[in-house]
Amino acid sequence: MMAEDDVVFVGNKPVMNYVLAVVTQFNSGTKEVRIMARGRAISRAVDVAEVSRARFLHEQGVVVKDIKISTEKLNTDRGETNVSAIEIVLGK
Amino acid sequence: MMAEDDVVFVGNKPVMNYVLAVVTQFNSGTKEVRIMARGRAISRAVDVAEVSRARFLHEQGVVVKDIKISTEKLNTDRGETNVSAIEIVLGK
Repeated sequence: MMAEDDVVFVGNKPVMNYVLAVVTQFNSGTKEVRIMARGRAISRAVDVAEVSRARFLHEQGVVVKDIKISTEKLNTDRGETNVSAIEIVLGK
Repeated sequence: MMAEDDVVFVGNKPVMNYVLAVVTQFNSGTKEVRIMARGRAISRAVDVAEVSRARFLHEQGVVVKDIKISTEKLNTDRGETNVSAIEIVLGK
């Protein structure tokens, strides 16, 4: 789990780890948090956004402001490969 | 893989199965296709949208028109549980 500025990168840790990062940022005054993930972590990123919003941030008026999907090129041992990515913006 | 109207439900089959369903619908005259998935299939739904768009439908002017995420309640053996869902609308 990394948190730079107002970005939470979702990887292979449990959903609640990332939810905590998101909620902490809003509780410290942030108006917008970007939740980002690639590949199989995309499903978890959607879980993070939904749990954060519906269970913890609903009363603060936090909603899904934008969702973008894209394709990124990754360099691996077997050469260049494509991986899907998602960016979910939660904000007030 | 189910295709009703202009909806493609993404499950556990290979990405290209669903890409074929999406591309076929556009090639038969459809202006909009909704790609839907729940739980762990969400990552695959993003792959389906990205591969369909970037590799097969780009020249037809097909773009991502809307993306929604939500939480659905499922009844399982162990009682009610929440599952995240995604809906990706591709259109011209």
